[in-house]
Amino acid sequence: MDIQALAKAHPDHWSKACAIRALTLDAVAAANSGHSGMPIGMADVATVLFEKHLKFDAANPQWPDRDRFILSAGHGSMLIYALLYLTGDKQVTLEQIKNFRQMGAKTAGHPENFLLEGVETTTGPLGQGISNAVGFAMAEELQRAQYGKKVVDHHTYVFAGDGCLMEGVSQEAIGLAGKQELSKLIVFWDNNGITIDGTVDIADKTDQIARFKASGWSVYECDGHDPDDIDRVIVAAKKSKKPTMIACKTHIALGTSAQDTSKGHGALTDSKLISDARDVYGWPHPAFDIPADVKSAWEAIGSRGAADRAEWEDRFATLSQSKQREFNRVLAGEAPKKLSATIKALKKQISDEAPKVATRKSSEMVLEVINPIMQETIGGSADLTGSNNTKTGDLGIFEPGNRKGRYVYYGIREHGMAAAMNGMALHGGVRPYGGTFLCFADYARGAMRLSALMKTPVTYVMTHDSIGLGEDGPTHQPVEHVASLRAMPNMNVFRPADTVETAEAWEIALTSTETPSTLALSRQGLPTVRTEHKTKNMVAQGAYVLADAEGKRQVILMATGSEVSVALAARDLLQAEGIGTRVVSMPCWELFSAQDEAYRKRVLPGGAVRVAIEAGVRQGWDKWLLGERGREAKAGFVGMDSFGASAPAGELFEKFGITAEAVAEKAKSLL
Amino acid sequence: MDIQALAKAHPDHWSKACAIRALTLDAVAAANSGHSGMPIGMADVATVLFEKHLKFDAANPQWPDRDRFILSAGHGSMLIYALLYLTGDKQVTLEQIKNFRQMGAKTAGHPENFLLEGVETTTGPLGQGISNAVGFAMAEELQRAQYGKKVVDHHTYVFAGDGCLMEGVSQEAIGLAGKQELSKLIVFWDNNGITIDGTVDIADKTDQIARFKASGWSVYECDGHDPDDIDRVIVAAKKSKKPTMIACKTHIALGTSAQDTSKGHGALTDSKLISDARDVYGWPHPAFDIPADVKSAWEAIGSRGAADRAEWEDRFATLSQSKQREFNRVLAGEAPKKLSATIKALKKQISDEAPKVATRKSSEMVLEVINPIMQETIGGSADLTGSNNTKTGDLGIFEPGNRKGRYVYYGIREHGMAAAMNGMALHGGVRPYGGTFLCFADYARGAMRLSALMKTPVTYVMTHDSIGLGEDGPTHQPVEHVASLRAMPNMNVFRPADTVETAEAWEIALTSTETPSTLALSRQGLPTVRTEHKTKNMVAQGAYVLADAEGKRQVILMATGSEVSVALAARDLLQAEGIGTRVVSMPCWELFSAQDEAYRKRVLPGGAVRVAIEAGVRQGWDKWLLGERGREAKAGFVGMDSFGASAPAGELFEKFGITAEAVAEKAKSLL
Repeated sequence: MDIQALAKAHPDHWSKACAIRALTLDAVAAANSGHSGMPIGMADVATVLFEKHLKFDAANPQWPDRDRFILSAGHGSMLIYALLYLTGDKQVTLEQIKNFRQMGAKTAGHPENFLLEGVETTTGPLGQGISNAVGFAMAEELQRAQYGKKVVDHHTYVFAGDGCLMEGVSQEAIGLAGKQELSKLIVFWDNNGITIDGTVDIADKTDQIARFKASGWSVYECDGHDPDDIDRVIVAAKKSKKPTMIACKTHIALGTSAQDTSKGHGALTDSKLISDARDVYGWPHPAFDIPADVKSAWEAIGSRGAADRAEWEDRFATLSQSKQREFNRVLAGEAPKKLSATIKALKKQISDEAPKVATRKSSEMVLEVINPIMQETIGGSADLTGSNNTKTGDLGIFEPGNRKGRYVYYGIREHGMAAAMNGMALHGGVRPYGGTFLCFADYARGAMRLSALMKTPVTYVMTHDSIGLGEDGPTHQPVEHVASLRAMPNMNVFRPADTVETAEAWEIALTSTETPSTLALSRQGLPTVRTEHKTKNMVAQGAYVLADAEGKRQVILMATGSEVSVALAARDLLQAEGIGTRVVSMPCWELFSAQDEAYRKRVLPGGAVRVAIEAGVRQGWDKWLLGERGREAKAGFVGMDSFGASAPAGELFEKFGITAEAVAEKAKSLL
Repeated sequence: MDIQALAKAHPDHWSKACAIRALTLDAVAAANSGHSGMPIGMADVATVLFEKHLKFDAANPQWPDRDRFILSAGHGSMLIYALLYLTGDKQVTLEQIKNFRQMGAKTAGHPENFLLEGVETTTGPLGQGISNAVGFAMAEELQRAQYGKKVVDHHTYVFAGDGCLMEGVSQEAIGLAGKQELSKLIVFWDNNGITIDGTVDIADKTDQIARFKASGWSVYECDGHDPDDIDRVIVAAKKSKKPTMIACKTHIALGTSAQDTSKGHGALTDSKLISDARDVYGWPHPAFDIPADVKSAWEAIGSRGAADRAEWEDRFATLSQSKQREFNRVLAGEAPKKLSATIKALKKQISDEAPKVATRKSSEMVLEVINPIMQETIGGSADLTGSNNTKTGDLGIFEPGNRKGRYVYYGIREHGMAAAMNGMALHGGVRPYGGTFLCFADYARGAMRLSALMKTPVTYVMTHDSIGLGEDGPTHQPVEHVASLRAMPNMNVFRPADTVETAEAWEIALTSTETPSTLALSRQGLPTVRTEHKTKNMVAQGAYVLADAEGKRQVILMATGSEVSVALAARDLLQAEGIGTRVVSMPCWELFSAQDEAYRKRVLPGGAVRVAIEAGVRQGWDKWLLGERGREAKAGFVGMDSFGASAPAGELFEKFGITAEAVAEKAKSLL
């Protein structure tokens, strides 16, 4: 690599790219940690993209019609921070760059969407960014179909490394994008041939170009350090009718003594290495010092889109008032005013009719009334549509010929679905939900955790939530999944007992702006337990008294989901013996924990025996069973302590002893 | 599809394949659930494979040098049950077929390795079987290199459907197999163009042939119903120097009225459909009735390998006595006798020297003494070798040119690594361990759960186990992961406090035959807390008194891993104020739960304030804090209740209040 020749051939470009490289070296050295190689290697591609193509206005990083830039190789976070600082982002000051990776800095180790407006999505766990990007591009298509090209018309650009492409989730994303012909999605592959353990070929010989083409992508190749070549392929990619992958041949840690090595991937902090690199770059400026002409050239790039934005504002103003209000409401994540009344009406109807249905079917009944009044919902399933009950009549299929369709056939891709839904939620203008079996939350967990961390209000419709699934057996029967999802911060896990609770859970999920929701829904039919209509959303309190003790309260039974009706039946047995028994339905622990202590004590007072019933593991229940302060109760648990088995559901509940009789016996043994 | 012509052209083949189809229809109808389409569609391929190629002896399903047959599309379980019954497997009787999917039957909804010797691996969660298969083929290569071709020389055959290929984990497996040039791995793709939601192309347009070729595979195509064509491609595949994918054009639910439809995927139970299919097949026999000539033809196939096996026994007998003993020991999963003494010697040395090292480094120190005496270990990492400390000097790299190498560069493929390790463990003859960051257990969880369910003693080396990871921030800092893994049945989760506990944990992991282990290891240096040498493996009890109270016991501090030294420091503070404080180290809850109640009470007696310290969420701790029977203690918790942040580790422990001072204050506030 003849760096001097490069610099000489494109002096203006070179100095701008060097600013990224120098800031990276300086910030990583100051932090004594981080990743130098990727920002240095991709600085040229980033410079050309930002200078000539990316539609953005640094003064308004959240302008709805901006192009999205996603750094899937999130460890190279200094690339994005350098770009934000250089272009004049208000949040990323030089002070922030100097405090890279330090306590309280917005310039965290990996780019965090909740710290910086200029960061579209949190990346770092590899493969997520490229998969989010598919969701961004899908949301753009749907929103464009709904509001027109004059207000929605932007690209999604991604920088992805070998790590992103080796992760399996990338295949799910690539396949989905290819099928969906997402022509405004452009992925730059940082083809530097290096991973942490060595050269890529010690672990993989995949021909990435052939692989992307196999899934219906356009592919272009360029020299990732030649600005003209980079520009050429971006121009071509923007014309493609398919999603495009641009293979950028780059040198990791270009121009340093660690160039083209694994060492170059990580933190380059050696002072001689850094000063030698400065010499090679022809960059004599002190650490963190960007010459005024270079900075102003970058700021000009940052303000280049201001006119575009102003024109967009004018075009937006030509939309009808109601369209404008709708656009802004959805973007703000606000539910329509009608939602509350719609849910209440359904609840009333259900309480009156008291059907016995599986809660997965209840969920469909809710969606049937919600989807028509919330044009922002976009549903889907990982190839279990008929089982997850996620598709309602009015949605239409989202596909290349029908961008107004609001139902996605995600294919057998749980992880890719979850990551795409994160991208949709982050893009804004849509509210995604998607289904699979609860057991396969395990496949999606990497992305579900990011929903929680990024505060994307995605709704996971997880059906077949226990051994109630029956004959498919232990590979398909969740036992530990509800507990494992409850362990995750900022994830509301709902396990509703009937259609009324399911409607209430959906209402909370659809009005949430900062917390994703998991709905754990039954395969098997469940009786309506909320037969007395209440306008109040009882699930919003997390737990509540469903049936109180008659006579002296000796026993409190706590249950969720399909076991609430078991608890009610056990209460009948106990009351018949004169044992006063309260039943507490606990559909959402997180919301119950968020209530004040007085309420929690009213629901779960001391002095009574407590028995919890849930067709899952006990882990976590002790908090409620033993009392938050200990010393409160004698307690027992009726549930699972092993994997399930393959047999009809009813027989399994008998086999594993999750029955009203067992619950009553357990309670009596504790009295 | 002219079925009559097919039947006429190959009458012997046809009747054998029809036996599979008829048993499938009958068993699914009897169960009123299951999946008919796949066994019916792939019956011809299975018949040719078993009749002409698969090396097996139905009377000895565990013969070590058998070919492995893996039904990755596990929902088609009736295919494998039919094959086992027809070929004369002792476990799968006709009674079992009639009890398909019923309580207690070995013919479970999905094939379970722990129920049937003839089932190599549990499948059903899509993409797992094909990924296990890569591990099977790797284990075969390593074992062949160690023992010679005369005793280890077999193929791994896989049936995979579109679901398996759409799951991201399949890409990880395909890439790994391609790199490793696993020429004895042959995957049959059941190319029927149908998924549950519709035709494949509603979700995917991937050219699978091009995709496999891109990752270094040979690909052949055949008519999946023409026995000659099927035979032709298998012959060719066996000669390939690369892994081979055979694209079998098939018709799901062939010959039924549901042929080539999504309906055909599931349970075909309609009696008219079934009788019509029998007519089409020319199969007039009653349900479950296999004509004697067809059954005996199949039994001849089942015993075809008996001579092979006998010859193999003779060849095996020519190995030296010590080689034979070694082969059998490893196959039985027994640790070498030297292991115990080796671990003890290391423990003694460490207790004497009391180094301050990260437990990930401790793990490396253990591996340095274990790997030389256990030739069956095969280590690796998902591209974090230097961080996971999984590679020791003597291992060599497992690669096409060095099959004796025992270290695998898995690439950035956590899920594929875990699934491959399951395959290795199931193959036998090797004991796999592999590393990544604990946070990325989320990516591997689908396969980790199968380790637990299948009882494969895989060891997961999960480093960077808390906010102690530091600057990489919340995407890389596990908070809920230890809890979420503890929720899983049959998974030993170890969080050792120092090198001695790490050695003890490894000893348990390496002697386990039915339980996988997760080692949660620190990034940051930890002092040696076990400075007094004990020959006994203290971790085997799960929890134990590390430092007892001086004077009256008022406080019990419980901690794991990096927080044990915090607890010890807190004890110093409390004892200095005259507050008698016991410290209990709890490296493995599962093993502590397995102790008798008397021991647990000795370790955690009532009457003292309890404080637990763990840099993770509280979930699960209440079991120990509040006492297993409640009413035992006032209790507090010092740990995390949110995601972490990006900053140096020491500052994070201060910020989140996980310090000796905070622990002492918490204890005092409860007294």
